[in-house]
Amino acid sequence: MTRLTHLDEHGKAHMVDVADKPSTTRTACAQAQVTMSEQAFQLLNEGTHKKGDVLAVARIAGIQAAKQTSNLIPLCHPLMLTKVQVDFELCPPNQVKIATLAKLNGQTGVEMEALTAASVAALTIYDMCKAVDKGMVIDGVRLLSKSGGKSGDYQAGSGGVND
Amino acid sequence: MTRLTHLDEHGKAHMVDVADKPSTTRTACAQAQVTMSEQAFQLLNEGTHKKGDVLAVARIAGIQAAKQTSNLIPLCHPLMLTKVQVDFELCPPNQVKIATLAKLNGQTGVEMEALTAASVAALTIYDMCKAVDKGMVIDGVRLLSKSGGKSGDYQAGSGGVND
Amino acid sequence: MTRLTHLDEHGKAHMVDVADKPSTTRTACAQAQVTMSEQAFQLLNEGTHKKGDVLAVARIAGIQAAKQTSNLIPLCHPLMLTKVQVDFELCPPNQVKIATLAKLNGQTGVEMEALTAASVAALTIYDMCKAVDKGMVIDGVRLLSKSGGKSGDYQAGSGGVND
Amino acid sequence: MTRLTHLDEHGKAHMVDVADKPSTTRTACAQAQVTMSEQAFQLLNEGTHKKGDVLAVARIAGIQAAKQTSNLIPLCHPLMLTKVQVDFELCPPNQVKIATLAKLNGQTGVEMEALTAASVAALTIYDMCKAVDKGMVIDGVRLLSKSGGKSGDYQAGSGGVND
Amino acid sequence: MTRLTHLDEHGKAHMVDVADKPSTTRTACAQAQVTMSEQAFQLLNEGTHKKGDVLAVARIAGIQAAKQTSNLIPLCHPLMLTKVQVDFELCPPNQVKIATLAKLNGQTGVEMEALTAASVAALTIYDMCKAVDKGMVIDGVRLLSKSGGKSGDYQAGSGGVND
Amino acid sequence: MTRLTHLDEHGKAHMVDVADKPSTTRTACAQAQVTMSEQAFQLLNEGTHKKGDVLAVARIAGIQAAKQTSNLIPLCHPLMLTKVQVDFELCPPNQVKIATLAKLNGQTGVEMEALTAASVAALTIYDMCKAVDKGMVIDGVRLLSKSGGKSGDYQAGSGGVND
Repeated sequence: MTRLTHLDEHGKAHMVDVADKPSTTRTACAQAQVTMSEQAFQLLNEGTHKKGDVLAVARIAGIQAAKQTSNLIPLCHPLMLTKVQVDFELCPPNQVKIATLAKLNGQTGVEMEALTAASVAALTIYDMCKAVDKGMVIDGVRLLSKSGGKSGDYQAGSGGVND
Repeated sequence: MTRLTHLDEHGKAHMVDVADKPSTTRTACAQAQVTMSEQAFQLLNEGTHKKGDVLAVARIAGIQAAKQTSNLIPLCHPLMLTKVQVDFELCPPNQVKIATLAKLNGQTGVEMEALTAASVAALTIYDMCKAVDKGMVIDGVRLLSKSGGKSGDYQAGSGGVND
Repeated sequence: MTRLTHLDEHGKAHMVDVADKPSTTRTACAQAQVTMSEQAFQLLNEGTHKKGDVLAVARIAGIQAAKQTSNLIPLCHPLMLTKVQVDFELCPPNQVKIATLAKLNGQTGVEMEALTAASVAALTIYDMCKAVDKGMVIDGVRLLSKSGGKSGDYQAGSGGVND
Repeated sequence: MTRLTHLDEHGKAHMVDVADKPSTTRTACAQAQVTMSEQAFQLLNEGTHKKGDVLAVARIAGIQAAKQTSNLIPLCHPLMLTKVQVDFELCPPNQVKIATLAKLNGQTGVEMEALTAASVAALTIYDMCKAVDKGMVIDGVRLLSKSGGKSGDYQAGSGGVND
Repeated sequence: MTRLTHLDEHGKAHMVDVADKPSTTRTACAQAQVTMSEQAFQLLNEGTHKKGDVLAVARIAGIQAAKQTSNLIPLCHPLMLTKVQVDFELCPPNQVKIATLAKLNGQTGVEMEALTAASVAALTIYDMCKAVDKGMVIDGVRLLSKSGGKSGDYQAGSGGVND
Repeated sequence: MTRLTHLDEHGKAHMVDVADKPSTTRTACAQAQVTMSEQAFQLLNEGTHKKGDVLAVARIAGIQAAKQTSNLIPLCHPLMLTKVQVDFELCPPNQVKIATLAKLNGQTGVEMEALTAASVAALTIYDMCKAVDKGMVIDGVRLLSKSGGKSGDYQAGSGGVND
């Protein structure tokens, strides 16, 4: 029967062995979105056109966080990402969409790295705009796709509860 | 006019000066929720009753992450949290709700610490259950309330876009 | 003559070159034990049966510490562990035994990772029980076995000073 | 009845609230010892007289680890140590004794900082000498004394199981 | 006679005790400069006008590094910076000047935090421009001024070897 | 035309993809120098002969910093250094020269690791001597040579602006 792989047969947490998995090129894409007041969005949007700093800071925060994933998520393996990318889309009147990509030549997937980058980029936007709007909400933190693992590629669908 | 406080008058990021703010007791409460397939929820739920390890790991991850907030969010001040708490509520058929509390005697608010704890606890649940369900979604990462700062207490409302 | 490999011929510390060592599967097992008052043991033991949180926290702390080894031990190489495991045995009336395993496909041994996991798991038990007993002692932090390196396998013996 | 303070009434881990504890000067002293083969001790001892590097490295590792305690021990509070000291005593024919001191003006004790410094200094000695002796053992990691907290001063005794 | 305060009377490193120093507002300003080829400068300069990303990334890196100072410089005390600022001046035809400010209410100076911010901002500029010019040089990393400590204020002079 | 590789075509920062670069043995050598007052140099010099601790501490700080490079420099890839070496040359009457070497079997160069080691070793010397001389200056932080990458070997020249 299906089991949560991070728990052994006695329900104890451990870092699962990936030593015998083949080393392949793996990618994962994730997303998140921040919904804010129109006033906060407007300030962010003007900033983007003239100065760009909020998103520049959030981009760096997301990239740095991806590299910290194994320190943040207890049972993640340390790994050597070969690429991290964080993109933003400004969706008027009040939403910022975040899309991330993580890539690795290795033995384990990089879903958590892509998701962590998206989450921390979103938190950074919250931090930088919270003087104007404390009611912002981060939603839709999810995996969009992954490729390269033995369990086959994954593409977020369009029919289920979470799709 | 209202400005994003993390950007100076030229739009450049800096860590704002809090040296002259009074040191007061500050608290912040945040939340997040993870929606998953019923199968994943059932495995998590059984684990909770018998062993508890998924939530125990996620709780520790959230507490540890709160202490790492100033390393993750570039313009956050380092600070000495006096308390961090992470709680979970299992909401059948398919949702885990996360509630966090951060507390400090200090010169700056702890919203980001509470939000970071909630986000990383949610990411850890994702990590530990992703073998069963890759389509899980993290939603509703938001500030519930804060107290203790000069800008007055905050309570998430119930009428606006994000409330 | 035998030399300490972390010191060069002038006695200065450096991180030794492992670039030309073959990449092989390496494992190391270590142990530690915490001796406490019978009262502390009893509280821990009850916790284990009903809730498990002290050992669950110590297990996560040990796993996370293994991944931090190269930041803690100055001349250790950074490496990508493929597996970490931390187990506990409750030995009435007053002792907890800790056994750890670290595994890697790589060019350098993982003894320090296994030993660090055991030490930090033991320190975490101390932290969580110290309100009841400040006199706890951590003993027997040692390497049990290692395999996979060019210097041959190692098994802790049963006749020497330290065996 | 006595309870483990890191677990709440439901057995869940949390970081206990110290916001209302008075800020006082707190100190803690801890120790550890490393027992090794006479050959390893001799090499270390010669190094100490001529060059000192093994112990210099272990001293820095212990000091740095004390500052990392709240990242290593999940429920420890972050705090601002005002002093850390790590001393060594070479005890022929085969033992190195480690004594540490941690100090703080603050709301929580520094036992774990002193114990972590001692443990990591010991692990570093192991790392630097393991090419010569893999059978080294770290023993006697314990709190010697603490002062400054509301629960009164503590001095390791001389009559109990662990004294 | 004058002594290096980080070494005790036996020449051993320790983290000096600041527990009895008064808590005052302390600031430190530091600088560094990066000299590069005119081609690299031109690309950076265009970037600054149009996009700003190299300097935005270097600014964040400097701010983040200031917060990491006590982990990087072994005998530095952990402390809670209340402000960090990193500024750049583009000096045609081939130099970028970096000026940093660190501020704290506390018991110890923040020179190292200001210097670390300047150094890491400079290294980040190197990293981002090295595809175009590997011969860049970082010079003039120095303390410009400090205030708030018991040893009096300091202002870099204009007549000595280093002024 | 030449472009800064860390910026994409829209000027946004990202961590460049190295997944398809061949894994080769790469080395980089860097340097830095600290110029100080003759009094500070004399104290350091005596320390070096008798006790060595300032340079021993700076050496460890440099080695540890090399391993932290990808956390400090936002767009650096995490990597597994196989060797780090930090050497010092005392140049009377008032200068300490620092030479570093970093080595890796991997897909990306190690210039930043060698440069970071040199910078942090220099900052540590500043920290340990600043009680005697606040006017010290760190200069000449530069890459001396690199080998192993596809862009060919590099050797700092002797004719240009920075050579």
